[in-house]
This record gives sequence, C-alpha cells and structure tokens, in this order.
Amino acid sequence: MPWQDKLGKVLTFEALFALGLGVLSKLLMVLMVIIMARVILHFGYLFSGRVLKPREDKGYLAEGRVETLRGLVDSILRYLVYFVAAVTILDTLGVGVTSVLAGAGIVGLAVGFGAQNLVKDVITGFFIIFENQYTVGEYISIAGVSGIVQEIGLRVTKVKAFAGDLYIIPNGNISQVTNYSRGNMRALIDITIAHEEDIDKALAVLEETSRHLADQVPEIVEGPNVLGAVDLSEYGVVLRVIAQAQPMHQWGVERRLRKAYKEAFAAAGIEAPYPRRVVLLKESKTPNS
Amino acid sequence: MPWQDKLGKVLTFEALFALGLGVLSKLLMVLMVIIMARVILHFGYLFSGRVLKPREDKGYLAEGRVETLRGLVDSILRYLVYFVAAVTILDTLGVGVTSVLAGAGIVGLAVGFGAQNLVKDVITGFFIIFENQYTVGEYISIAGVSGIVQEIGLRVTKVKAFAGDLYIIPNGNISQVTNYSRGNMRALIDITIAHEEDIDKALAVLEETSRHLADQVPEIVEGPNVLGAVDLSEYGVVLRVIAQAQPMHQWGVERRLRKAYKEAFAAAGIEAPYPRRVVLLKESKTPNS
Amino acid sequence: MPWQDKLGKVLTFEALFALGLGVLSKLLMVLMVIIMARVILHFGYLFSGRVLKPREDKGYLAEGRVETLRGLVDSILRYLVYFVAAVTILDTLGVGVTSVLAGAGIVGLAVGFGAQNLVKDVITGFFIIFENQYTVGEYISIAGVSGIVQEIGLRVTKVKAFAGDLYIIPNGNISQVTNYSRGNMRALIDITIAHEEDIDKALAVLEETSRHLADQVPEIVEGPNVLGAVDLSEYGVVLRVIAQAQPMHQWGVERRLRKAYKEAFAAAGIEAPYPRRVVLLKESKTPNS
Amino acid sequence: MPWQDKLGKVLTFEALFALGLGVLSKLLMVLMVIIMARVILHFGYLFSGRVLKPREDKGYLAEGRVETLRGLVDSILRYLVYFVAAVTILDTLGVGVTSVLAGAGIVGLAVGFGAQNLVKDVITGFFIIFENQYTVGEYISIAGVSGIVQEIGLRVTKVKAFAGDLYIIPNGNISQVTNYSRGNMRALIDITIAHEEDIDKALAVLEETSRHLADQVPEIVEGPNVLGAVDLSEYGVVLRVIAQAQPMHQWGVERRLRKAYKEAFAAAGIEAPYPRRVVLLKESKTPNS
Amino acid sequence: MPWQDKLGKVLTFEALFALGLGVLSKLLMVLMVIIMARVILHFGYLFSGRVLKPREDKGYLAEGRVETLRGLVDSILRYLVYFVAAVTILDTLGVGVTSVLAGAGIVGLAVGFGAQNLVKDVITGFFIIFENQYTVGEYISIAGVSGIVQEIGLRVTKVKAFAGDLYIIPNGNISQVTNYSRGNMRALIDITIAHEEDIDKALAVLEETSRHLADQVPEIVEGPNVLGAVDLSEYGVVLRVIAQAQPMHQWGVERRLRKAYKEAFAAAGIEAPYPRRVVLLKESKTPNS
Amino acid sequence: MPWQDKLGKVLTFEALFALGLGVLSKLLMVLMVIIMARVILHFGYLFSGRVLKPREDKGYLAEGRVETLRGLVDSILRYLVYFVAAVTILDTLGVGVTSVLAGAGIVGLAVGFGAQNLVKDVITGFFIIFENQYTVGEYISIAGVSGIVQEIGLRVTKVKAFAGDLYIIPNGNISQVTNYSRGNMRALIDITIAHEEDIDKALAVLEETSRHLADQVPEIVEGPNVLGAVDLSEYGVVLRVIAQAQPMHQWGVERRLRKAYKEAFAAAGIEAPYPRRVVLLKESKTPNS
Amino acid sequence: MPWQDKLGKVLTFEALFALGLGVLSKLLMVLMVIIMARVILHFGYLFSGRVLKPREDKGYLAEGRVETLRGLVDSILRYLVYFVAAVTILDTLGVGVTSVLAGAGIVGLAVGFGAQNLVKDVITGFFIIFENQYTVGEYISIAGVSGIVQEIGLRVTKVKAFAGDLYIIPNGNISQVTNYSRGNMRALIDITIAHEEDIDKALAVLEETSRHLADQVPEIVEGPNVLGAVDLSEYGVVLRVIAQAQPMHQWGVERRLRKAYKEAFAAAGIEAPYPRRVVLLKESKTPNS
Repeated sequence: MPWQDKLGKVLTFEALFALGLGVLSKLLMVLMVIIMARVILHFGYLFSGRVLKPREDKGYLAEGRVETLRGLVDSILRYLVYFVAAVTILDTLGVGVTSVLAGAGIVGLAVGFGAQNLVKDVITGFFIIFENQYTVGEYISIAGVSGIVQEIGLRVTKVKAFAGDLYIIPNGNISQVTNYSRGNMRALIDITIAHEEDIDKALAVLEETSRHLADQVPEIVEGPNVLGAVDLSEYGVVLRVIAQAQPMHQWGVERRLRKAYKEAFAAAGIEAPYPRRVVLLKESKTPNS
Repeated sequence: MPWQDKLGKVLTFEALFALGLGVLSKLLMVLMVIIMARVILHFGYLFSGRVLKPREDKGYLAEGRVETLRGLVDSILRYLVYFVAAVTILDTLGVGVTSVLAGAGIVGLAVGFGAQNLVKDVITGFFIIFENQYTVGEYISIAGVSGIVQEIGLRVTKVKAFAGDLYIIPNGNISQVTNYSRGNMRALIDITIAHEEDIDKALAVLEETSRHLADQVPEIVEGPNVLGAVDLSEYGVVLRVIAQAQPMHQWGVERRLRKAYKEAFAAAGIEAPYPRRVVLLKESKTPNS
Repeated sequence: MPWQDKLGKVLTFEALFALGLGVLSKLLMVLMVIIMARVILHFGYLFSGRVLKPREDKGYLAEGRVETLRGLVDSILRYLVYFVAAVTILDTLGVGVTSVLAGAGIVGLAVGFGAQNLVKDVITGFFIIFENQYTVGEYISIAGVSGIVQEIGLRVTKVKAFAGDLYIIPNGNISQVTNYSRGNMRALIDITIAHEEDIDKALAVLEETSRHLADQVPEIVEGPNVLGAVDLSEYGVVLRVIAQAQPMHQWGVERRLRKAYKEAFAAAGIEAPYPRRVVLLKESKTPNS
Repeated sequence: MPWQDKLGKVLTFEALFALGLGVLSKLLMVLMVIIMARVILHFGYLFSGRVLKPREDKGYLAEGRVETLRGLVDSILRYLVYFVAAVTILDTLGVGVTSVLAGAGIVGLAVGFGAQNLVKDVITGFFIIFENQYTVGEYISIAGVSGIVQEIGLRVTKVKAFAGDLYIIPNGNISQVTNYSRGNMRALIDITIAHEEDIDKALAVLEETSRHLADQVPEIVEGPNVLGAVDLSEYGVVLRVIAQAQPMHQWGVERRLRKAYKEAFAAAGIEAPYPRRVVLLKESKTPNS
Repeated sequence: MPWQDKLGKVLTFEALFALGLGVLSKLLMVLMVIIMARVILHFGYLFSGRVLKPREDKGYLAEGRVETLRGLVDSILRYLVYFVAAVTILDTLGVGVTSVLAGAGIVGLAVGFGAQNLVKDVITGFFIIFENQYTVGEYISIAGVSGIVQEIGLRVTKVKAFAGDLYIIPNGNISQVTNYSRGNMRALIDITIAHEEDIDKALAVLEETSRHLADQVPEIVEGPNVLGAVDLSEYGVVLRVIAQAQPMHQWGVERRLRKAYKEAFAAAGIEAPYPRRVVLLKESKTPNS
Repeated sequence: MPWQDKLGKVLTFEALFALGLGVLSKLLMVLMVIIMARVILHFGYLFSGRVLKPREDKGYLAEGRVETLRGLVDSILRYLVYFVAAVTILDTLGVGVTSVLAGAGIVGLAVGFGAQNLVKDVITGFFIIFENQYTVGEYISIAGVSGIVQEIGLRVTKVKAFAGDLYIIPNGNISQVTNYSRGNMRALIDITIAHEEDIDKALAVLEETSRHLADQVPEIVEGPNVLGAVDLSEYGVVLRVIAQAQPMHQWGVERRLRKAYKEAFAAAGIEAPYPRRVVLLKESKTPNS
Repeated sequence: MPWQDKLGKVLTFEALFALGLGVLSKLLMVLMVIIMARVILHFGYLFSGRVLKPREDKGYLAEGRVETLRGLVDSILRYLVYFVAAVTILDTLGVGVTSVLAGAGIVGLAVGFGAQNLVKDVITGFFIIFENQYTVGEYISIAGVSGIVQEIGLRVTKVKAFAGDLYIIPNGNISQVTNYSRGNMRALIDITIAHEEDIDKALAVLEETSRHLADQVPEIVEGPNVLGAVDLSEYGVVLRVIAQAQPMHQWGVERRLRKAYKEAFAAAGIEAPYPRRVVLLKESKTPNS
C-alpha cells in the first residue's frame, strides 16, 4: 500500500524534512537538465556552423542557401534538445510520460499519418536546396507544372507559368525535376512535302537556307542540321531540321527557322502540303444506290 | 495475495483511518492536477497571444487570419492540457488507462486510420491560411476545380465556379494551388492563314493592328507582341500574338484582340482558313472499280 | 511457486474466510463500477443535450439534423463508457485482458484495417450533416455521380440521377461535394458563324435578341450578355452568350436562348455553320496517278 | 535460479503432494472456463435472437436476410468466446501465449494484411444485406459491372450481365451501388435536324407524335415531353424528348419512341440529318498546285 | 549480481548435481513438448478429414478440390503446431525469443510486407477453389485477361488465351471473376440502314430471316428477336437483333446471323450503309477564295 | 543503488576473483554460441541439399535453377543463424539489444519500408524460378514489356525487346506473366470487302486459297480456317481467317496468308476496300448558302 | 521512496565517497564504449575494403563504382556503430532512452514515413551502381524519361534528353530501366502502297534497294530484310523492312532507308499512297434532299 507508507512518513518530522529535501533535489535536477541542454545546444550550433561553412568556400553552396540549410539544421537541433530535456524533466517530476503517450495513441496515429506530408515536404525541400536542383529564375517543370521559379522554400516552391498563373507546390509533391536552363536547348522543325516532290531538291533548299540562318541568328549555338526524311505520312514526306539554341531562346529560334524554310520552299516552287485525296468516281453496282 | 493484505488491513482501526486519509490524499492530488492544468493553460494563452501578435503588426498576417490561427492554436493547447490532466487523474484513481487502451486497440486502429483525413485537412488548412496561399475573392484552381474562393476554413474551402456550382473541398484534398489573381495574366491568340498567303504581309497586318489595340484597350498591361509562325499545320501557317492583361481580364482581352485581328485580315484580303483538300480525280486501274 | 502458496492458504480456515471476503469485495467492486458508469452516462447525456441545443436556437442547425447528431454523440458516449466499464470489470475478475488482446492481434489487425472504411464513412457523414453540405432535394454531384439527394445517413447517401438510377454511396467515398442548388447557375450558348460573315452584324443580332429574351424569360436572373468571339475554329467564328438563371432552370433557359438565337440568325440571313472545305482540283504530276 | 528451487521442492514429499494438488486445481480451472464459455454463449444466442426479431415484425428485414445476419452474428460470437476461453486456458497451463505470438509477429503481419480483404468483404456484405441495397432479381451496377443480381452472399455477389457473362464480385470491391429497379427510369431520345429546317415545325411534329404515344405505350409512366433544342452541332439542331418509363422497360420505350419520331419526320418531309459539307471549289494561287 | 551467485554455486558439489538435474529436467520438458505436438497434430488431421468429407458426399466439392483444400488445411496446421512447439522449446532452453525477434524487427517488417502478396494469393486461391468460381476448361475473364482455364493452383491460375498466349496470374491479382461458361450467352447483331429506307420493311425482312435461322442453327437456344431501332446515327438507323446461344457458340452464331441478314437485305434491295455526305457547292463571298 | 554494491564488491579480493571468473564464463558462453551456430548451419546445409535434390531427379527442376534456389535457401539460413547468434552474444555481453533497437525505431521504420521492395523482388524471383514461369530464350510479356528473356536473376529479369532495347525489370514489378512460347500461336487475318460484293464468292476464294496454303506453309500447325463475316463496318464486310502456327512463326504466317488472300481477291476481281462515300449534291434552301 | 534513501546516503561521508567513485566508474565505462566503437570501426573498414576489392580485380566492378559503393558501406557502418555507442552511453548515464523515444513516437512515425523515400532512393541507387544497369553516356529510358545519362548518384540520376532538358530523377522513382546502348538496335520502315499495286513488284523493288543499301551504309549490322505485307489498311497494303543498326545510329539508318525506298518506288512508277475515296454520286430518294 504505497499511500499508507507515504502517509505514515508524512506524519513524522524526519519525513517532512526528507520531503523538503526531496523537492529541493528534484528542482536541482530540473535545473541541471536545463543547463546541460543549453550547453549541448551551444556546441551543436558551433558544430553546424563549422560543417556548413567550408563547402561555401568551395563555391559549392551559395550564401543564401547555406543560410537556409543552417537555419533548418539549427532548429531541428533545438527542438530535439528541448524535447529530450522536457521529457527528462517530466519524468523527474513523475508525470508518467509513457502512460500519457499510450493514452494519446489513437490521436497520435491520426496526427502521425496526417503530418507525414509535412515531413516529406521539408525533407524534399532540403535536398532540392542542398543539391541545387533549381534556383530562382530558372525555367523548370515539376509536378506536371512548367514555369519560372519564383521562390524556393523548405515547404513549398512557387512557380509562375507563362500564362501568368502562380503555382504553389508542396515540395513533397515534387518527385522528378526537369530543368530547361542548364545547357543548350534543341530547336526542331518538321516540314511536310507532297509525295510527288523531289526529296533531294527539298533537302538542298533546306541545307542552303540553314547555312544562311546559322550566320544570321546569334541565338543558334550549333548550326541547323538537316536530318532528312523522318516519316512517310499519309499526306507526304516529313523532313526534319534540328539546331541547338541558347536556353530560353529555342522557341524564338524555332519560329525564325520555320518561317525561313517555309519561304524558301515557296520560292523554290515546292508545293504547300495540303491533305490530298485520290477520288475514284464510279457507278454503284447495286440497283438502288 | 494482495486482496488478503487489503482484507487484513480493512479490519483494523488504523487501516480504516489510513484508508480515509488515502482517499483524502487522492482527492487532494486530483484537485492539484486540475489547478495546475488551469495555470498552465492561462500562461499558454498569454504566450500564443504574444507569438501571433507581432507578425500582425508587420502586416504579414491579416486580422481575420490571425484570429483563426490563434483560435486553432488555443484549442489544440486546451485539448492537450485537458487530456494530460484527465489521464493523470485516472491514473491516480487507479482506473488502469493502459489496460483500457490496450483493449481499445482494434477500434483505435480503425478510428485512427479513419480520422487521419480530418487531421490532414486541418494541417493543410493551417498552412493555406498561414502562408496566405489564397484569400476570399481570388480566382484559383485547386483539386481539379477552378473558381472564385467563397470561404476558407480549417477543414474545407468553398469555391464558386463560373458555371455557378458551389464546390466544397476538404483542405486535405488540396495538394497544389494555382492562383490566377497574383500578377498579370497572359492573353494568347493563334490565327491560321493558308499556306499560299504571304507570311510577311500577315505579320505586318498583325503588328499594325496590335499597335492600335495597345492604346485602345486599357486592360492590356504589356502591348500585344506578334511572335511569328509557331506551327506549320495541315491547313496553313499558325501565327501567334501574346499580351499581358490585368488579372481576370485576360479573357475579355483575348476576345477583343481576336475580333480585331480577324477583321483586319478580312480587310487586307487574307483568306479565311477553311480546311483545304487537294483532290486528284482518277480512273481506277482495277477493272471493276 | 504461486500455486503452492495459494494451496497452503486454501487449507487453513482463515484463508477460506479471507477467500469468501475476497470474492465478496470483488463483487462489490464490480457493482460500484456499474453504478459509476450509469452515473457518468447520465451526466454525459445531459451535457450533450446542452451543447447541441443552443445552436439550434440560432437557426444554424435544423431540428432533424440536431437529432441525428445527438443520437450519434450519445451512442458513441454509451459505447465508450460501457467499454471502459467492461474492461475494468474483467481486470478485476482477473481475466487478463491484455493477454487476450495480444492473442487477438492478427485478427485484430485484419478487422481494424477492414473496419476503417466504416469509421471513415461515419466521420465524413458527421461533417456532411454538421456543416450542412447538402440537404435532401438539392441537386449535387458527389463521387462522380450527379442527381437529386434522396436521403442522407451517417453511413450512406442516396442520390437519384435524372436517368432514374438510384445511387447508394458510402459517405467515406465522398471527398469533394459540388452543390448546384446554392445560388444562380450559368446558362452558356456557343454559336458558330462562317468566317465570311460580318462579326459585328452577328453580334448586333445577338444583342437585340438577348434584350427581348431578358424580358420574356422569368427564370433569367441576370440578362444574357453577349461576350463576343471566343474562338476562331476550323469552320468559323465561335460567338458566346452567357446568362444567370435560377438554380435547376439553367438547362431550360439554355434551350430557350439557343432556339431564339438560331431563329434570329436565320431571319437575318446569317448562314448555318456547316463544315466547309476548299477543294483544289488538280492533275497529279506523277505519270500513273 | 528457479529450476533449482523447483528441483529442491520436487524431492520432498510435501512438494509432490502440492504438485498433485496444483495440477488438479489447474484442471478444475480449465473446466470452469469451459463451463463459463458455454453459459455465456447460450445467453448470447438468446440475446441476438431477441435483437434481430422485432425488426422482422416491422417488415423491415425479410425472413431470409434475418437468418443470414443472425447466422453471421452468432458465429462471430461463437468464435470470440471460444478464442477468449482458449487463450485463458493456455495461460493457465503456462504455455506463454504472448511469447508465441511475438514469435508469430512477422507471419502475423503478412497474414493480417493478406486477410483484411476477407474481413472487408464480410463487413461490406453485412451492410448490403442489412441496408437492403439490392436483392436478387434487381438490375444493378456495381464495381463497373451491370446486370441482374443472381445471388447475394456475405463474401461475394453474383451478377448475370445481359451478354450472359456471370460476374463473381467480392463484396469488398463494391463501393457504390447503382440500383436501376427502384422507381421509374428515364427514356431519352435525341434527334438531329438540318440547320435549314424550321425548328418550330419539327417541335410541333414531335409534340403531336408524343401525344399519340402517351396513349398507345402502356409502359410510359409520364408522357413524353419535348424539351427543345439542346445543342447546335456541326451538322444540325439536336432536339430532345424525354419520358418516364417503368423500370427495365426504358430501352423498349426508347426504341418505340425513336421509330415513331423518325417516321413522323419522314412523313412531314423533314430531311434526314446526313453530314453536310459546303465545298468551295477554287483555283490555287501558287503556280504548281 | 547473478553471475556471482552462479559462480559460487558452480564451485560446490550440490550445485553441480542440481545443474545436472536441471539440464535433465529441461531435456524432459523438450521431449514432452515434442510428444504433445505430435498428438495434437494427429487429432488435427483426423478432424480436418472429418470436416471436409461430408461436403464431398453432397456433390458440393469435387474429389480433386477436396484433396487440394485438405492438403492446404493440413499443412497450415502442421506449420502452426511446429512453430508453437519450437518457440516453447527455445523458451525452455533460454534462448530469449522475444529479444531475438525484437532484433529482427526491421527485417521482419520488410519481410512481412513483402510476403503479404504471397498470403493474399493463397487466401484468394482457397476461395476460388472452395467456391468453385471456375474450373479447368471454362472460358473466363480475370485480371484483364480472357481465355480458357488451363490450371488452378493455390498461388497461380494459368489461362490460355485464344491467341495462344499462356497467362500466369497470381491469384491475389484476381478480384472479380467473369465466367462465360455458366449459362447461355447472348449473340447481338447491329445493322445500319440508310435514313431514307423504310424501317418497317427492314424490320419485316429481319423478322422473316430470323424465323428461318431459328430452325436452321441448332446452337441458338432462344430464337433471334428483332428489337428495333436502337440508335439514329449520323449515317442511318441502327437496327438490333439478339439471340441466346449455347456457351462458346455465340461468336459462331453471330457470324451466321450477320451473313444471313446482310444477304436478306441485299435481296430485298435495301441499300448498303456507306457513309453519306450532302455536299453544297457554292461560290465563296470573299474576293480571293 | 547497483553501483554502490558493485563498488563495494570491487574493493574486496573475492569480488575481483569473482569478476575474473565472470568474464571468463561469459567468454565461454560466447564461444559455445559460436560453435552451436556452426553446427546448426552444417546440418541445415545438408538438409537443404537433400530437400532440393530429389525433385531434380524427376526432371522437374533443371540443374541451374536448383543451384540458384539452393544458394538462396543456404544464404537465408546462414544470415538467420548468424543473426540469432549475434543477438544472443550481445545479450550475454549486456549491450542491451532491445534498448538499442528501440532507439533505432524511427530509422528502422524508414529502412523497413524502403527495403520491402527488395524483399518483394526476391520472393517473386524465387517463385518465377521455382515454378518455371519462363526461361532464358522464351518470348514473354511482363510488366508491360515484351521481348526475349536474356537473364533471370533473383532480383531482376533482363528482357531484350525486338527493337533492341534491353529492359531491366525488378522481379517485384512482375505480377502477371504472359508466355508466348508455350504451345501454338494463332495467326489472324481480317480482310474487308465492299458491301456490294458477293460474300459467298469471297468466302469460296478464301477457302480455296487456304487449302493451298495449308500445304505450302510448313509453320502452319492447324490449317487456316475461314470463320466468316465478323463485322459489318462502315466501309464493308469484314471476313476473318485464323490458323494455328508454331510459336514465334505466327507473324511470318500472317504475312504470308495476308499476301496470298490479297492476290487471290485481286485475281477473282473482288474490289480493294477503299473507303466509300455516297455523295448527295444539292442546292441549299437558305438564300445565301 | 528512492529519493529518501538517496538523501540519507548523501548526508554520510561514505555515501559521498561512493558517489564520487560511482561517477568515476560511469566515466570509465563511457570511455571504454568509445574505445571499443573505434576499434570495431577500424576492423569494419578493413573488412569492407577486402570484400569489395577482389571483385574489382575480375573487372566486374569499375574503379569509380567500387569507390562509391565502399563509401556508402563505410558510412552506413560508421553511423551504425556511432548510434549503438551513443545509446549505450546515454543508457549508462541514465537518460532513459526508451522513455524519450516513446515520447518521440508521434513525430517519429511522421519522420519515419516521410524518410522512407530517401532510404528507397539509396537502396535503388546502390543496386543500379552495383548491377551496372547503366553508366554515364548511355542512352536509357527510366521513369518515363529518355535521354543520355549525365550523372549517377546514390540518391539521384541526371539524364539529359535530346531536347536539352535536364531531368533530375530520384533513384527510388526508377523501377524498370530500358537501356538502348547494349547491343544492336532495330531500324524499321513501313511503306504503304495502293491496293491496286502489284505486291510482288513492290517487294522486288524493296529487295533490290536493300541489297544496295547493305553495302553502302556501314552502320547497318544486319542487312535490311524485307518482311512482306504486315497490314491491309484502309488506304493500301503496308510493307515492312527491318534492319539491325549500331546503337544510337538506328534513327540515321531509318532516315537513309526511308529516302532510298521512297525514291526507288518513284523510279519504278509505284504510286504515292494518298488516301483514296470511292465516291458514289446519286440522287437522294427523299423529296427535299
């Protein structure tokens, strides 16, 4: 019967004195835990600062991103130490953490599942920033959305599409990233000519026009190359030309090339590729048709 | 044999006295727990008030949203403290929380899984309000639904589509948000001309018309730019013009531009782009066709 | 060796007497648990009645729905109290709840997962009724099904589609609700005219007809507005008119407007928009085609 | 060293006697557990019989379905009581249920997950029968399959499609049920007329034909209503007529109406809606086309 | 300090003797566990044999399937008993099952999740065989695959498609089964006639042809019924005939009926349903088109 | 205060001696565990060798596959025994496995979930090899990929498609297997004839050609059977011929048959099935069309 | 009352001395744990070095990949040993790891689920490198993306598509790999000829042209084989030619072959395959059409 022992003790003087000492010793322990937590935190901050700096010197991590990451690491450290300290203090005071937490099981399950998206967002966000997958101002495609990056956070990335829509995308939704601003982009033009046209003549026209364009258009990095006949479609022969353009100029280059080839073909008398039909007029064999 | 000890004690006077004292001490402990809970709650409210106010001063969080968030934080705090207090009291009274909860395991599993959507709704709702992803009156697209935001709650968002339908969307369903009311929107017009038309002439007509429109239409923020030939389709050359319009006026601007270009082309004698067919009439080689 | 101690005690008189007292004390405890459970239940009912009534006074919750919700809250309370009481009694009688439940683990896992849908149904059902997302007689769209609500329950919603099918939908399947009976609905008519037609003339005809219709059709809440040319399609120019109609009358209004515009165009000599083809007859250049 | 104590005791006479008594007492306990289980089962059966009967009197639950449900409830009860009794006996005999079950953890996880479908089937099956969602002979659509219900079980439902296929569908696969046999079904006929036709004349023909049909076709519950022009398609004006038919007769009614309207239009000289093309013959401007 | 006690004991003679006795007693216990396991297994086999036989007598379960099921039940029983015996023995020998299993937790989680498909396969396989959902030689459709069943096992079903492919399908992949060999199958023929044709005449031709076919084709179980006009398509009126055929002969019956109707229509001078176009030749209003 | 006891003991001579003996006894236990593990492993290898050999004799399992499976079984056994031994040793040395593992819980959860794919791969791989679902060189279709099996491993299967791509497919991705190399494959040819053609004549031509082909083409296992009219399409009557060919020769047979039928039809004067249109030229009724 | 005992001891001299010794002994234990961890790590590194080297000698694992894998194995080892050491130290110092971790349960659940993607990435990355599924510079298709591998890491793979986009793909997203650079690739050309053409003549032209091409094009590994008629389409007979080309040259070879066949057909007078229509002009039977 623990309460009887306790009761018996309470009524004697020594017990009262011992109780006072016990309360005191508990408070001292709480104090010690708090001091230790602060000391550990202090050294933790120093350490995270040391670990994240050298890489900055090598130009591997930009100033701003190092700040973001160190902030994240520091606050994870802080919450971790605070949490361990709090549990230790509660334990010391006899609140019965385990029993409370067992009681919180059902709710905890729901919260744990509900919060996993949040954690996933931050983890993915950390890697996007750490691995420099994209930076503000680049043209990217993530989670089925294409546009210019406006803002990168640990939880969400904001992307502005060409149509003006602002997309707010939780980082956890981002699985694979397509970055259109790292290296040259390809411009590709497909032109159809009728089946009756002379393919060699058409290719010659394209080659010559391409030579002129390579000089005139500065955004072309690698001159337009005439690939040849890539398809025999229903309506004619499809010819393809590709070129390498500076990033974000590929569409302009494509429009420029398209117009030039079109006009060159018109000048050379190569027919516009309207759909053709061969029509066979006949009298039906059945009496009433 | 605990019940025998208990029994033996019950029959002596001291034991009865001790029992009385024990019941009293338990009641005192319950009272103390209740008082402590109220004190902790009081300070918790003060703290949440202090944390959420300064940001309001910086204009970062609007009055209404701060109220919503503080209400949420306060009630989470309240339920948390009540819950810990209740478990501690039950423990003191010897009800055996763990054993009850172990018994509740199966049901708890079902409830925990069933309730995770609710938790997810509130967590997502919290971030939507806190990060100001959209506000009432903005035109947004969430969870496959587009419309004007009517109401933002912690659990659901109500959106009124243009067709008049009222969508009630649990916040947990919202993963990425598209906001059409933050910055200018693009108006885009594609016009097809026949392959035989002179591209340069058509572009000149578009350029001139665009210059007039930039002055006449006040909703255009950035004058209509003629991009050029964006496609060589089956039926002709596709020309594109884009402009930047004020948010929510992009459709009106598009209609206006479309009509103007159409009429300018008609005036310039550039043919309407009906589908064309080249028909080759022939006699079939097979005897009966 | 507990059974030896037990055995030794059983053979003495005091032990027998003690055993009798022990059984008695256990039965008393069971009785006490039962009485306490009933008392707690009684106060719980009173409380749920007090919490759910005031809101009814404010017209926020209709009579019927308050009944449904209170029934739900009361039965959850009842099962909870009964369950805690039963476990406490079993514990007192020494049945070993934890050990039984550990044994039930595998089955429990299966049942817990299998039953989570049931829990999800009731939770979602609770919020549908509590938040008044839809009521009997409204035209809604849920879980890919559109129709008139016939019955709302805590587990299922019954919807009658226009084609007469009765849909029985578990509430857990409902994630987002579209309600077509809260506010005006839009009527939208698209009419195509040939590219050769005069757009201004066509718009004038539409405007005039709309003015007449605004007066004649009482279901139109906001007069038909002629928006202009919304598309340049392959076959002509697409003109759009929209109007706001009373809920559930939008289809009737659309039919009425459609017929009126069609007849007005016919009267004004604006051509019916059959698909057009420009046919270029030619002799093929290749010898045998 | 427990085995040393045990060993020392085994070698003395008293210990042997005590051991015999211990074994006896254990066997008595096992017997008592068995007797109690049978008694509890007996009362459980009585109770389930009482609970499920009254509803039958109200005509709410048909005889057969009450049998099925009571069988289910009784066997769940039986397995539950047997299971608790078995675990208690094993515990008494000292087999160490928890340790065995901990050992069975991995397999148990796999079995638990694997078996959850089975549990889900039975739970869903219970509600289908209890809520009378469909009965044998009704025409329903579940889990993407439409047909006549042949058999409803707790685990599977058998549906015979019109094409003769027998579908065997686990009840857990059924989330929403569409029942086509509860109330009248709609018959809907869409007829296209050419854009040049007089809409009013066509509507008059439809109205008159409908009046005749309402009398002649007994399966029509609510006379065919001519709605008007529901679409302006590429090829003409689409007119719609709807009617309410007895369940399962809607297709027959549709065929009957369709033929009648078609013949009425032919008699009234309203043209058959073949696709129309406006063909503009022209000479191409480019030299070689 | 348990090792000190142990050490002190080891050095005395009595302790050594006691140790020997302890080892002996442990071995005896292991032996007893093994004997008990065999006895339990023996009775388990007898029982499973008794339970599964009576049903066979009623012709409900075929010989082969009873064998398969009994084999499954027996091996589950065997592994279960062996497992419980092994854990009990290890426990007796003091290996510390719980501690090992705790250590195996991570791997166990992975294995448990990985193996759940295997368990699901066997559970589904059990029900397919027990409920006789299909047997070897029947034409079925499962998991998106149609063909003749070649082999049914507890883990996989092998299906041979008409194209000759052998599908090996884990039973866990099978959720709903379509069996085409249980009852008559429907043959359905849709024939389109031109809008100008006389529907009544066409129906009369179909009726008469059907009467002849009902006599000539023995695979037709229920004579071909002419349903009427099921659709008014772009190109004509669609007429439908359906018949009931013996299972697996429906395709042959369809081919036979199709040819007969086609020839009857040709004989009756009803036109072949080539797509029709109404062509309106016109001069374009715009100057250059 | 365990450390005080320990401390007091440390300072006496006997305690030091006892400590030395304790360390020694622990090392002996570790040694014993290691020896036992090796002995158990040895017998385990013998056993797995015995179990897997007999089946090889029956020709059921090929040499190579038995090697693969035995390697798998042996390494699972090895890791299992090593693991149990390691945990037992750590336990003996007092490292506190449970406490370490509790600490590893979070990471363990992540690893356990992350590794389940690996386990699933190996389990599926085991069954593919054990059940001989496909072997190197067969033409199969798994996980949406078709090609010749190049290599079967426990974790991945490598498949070489006809286009030359090498697919590396984790076995866990494979749910159902289609094997095209077990038994004859079907060759199927559909030929369309115009609606005006005589079906009987066309069928006679097909029959006769088929008879010749059955003799000439050795890869045909079961002579081409003319099925008849399988569809009445927009453009004509579709006739079908099927044949059984040796596996992997079905495409060659199809090409051969196709060419033969095509030429036979040409010789018999049966018209090539170009799409047909019935064109109705007319004057439009509206004034300006 | 543990604190009273502690208190009593604190006030005596011996207790103080004992306390000092206790602290000392704890520090010694911590030191010992650290030393042991370092020793274990040292041997672990040696071992991982020995295990991974021999394979390198056999040319099975390239230098760079062995480095990557050894780095991974070493850091896993390091974190594992550090982790076990840290928990043991905390345990020694009495921090109560279990209680802290129980407290971390909810957060841990969320983190564990959130981090499983990370673990999956690394596991998949390990196997990609270890099994040499692809290397930098190869043309592959993974996770719906095709391109040249730029970089393989343990967490992500970077792929550069032909269009210039840089794809950053977490390895966990990669389930099946298609490698286009291991062995020859197929070039496939389909050419359609009109139904009236002589198939044999067309095949002869293809055969002859193929013989010339086999000599002229060095990238062709296995001469172009004329397969024959692979389809009878609406517009003609489809002939197919396939060839084996060196990897990455298949597209160039296809273009080359396509042009050659096209020109050979033109030279041989085989008609270009424009879509054909048989047009049946007729007078409609209905009065007004």
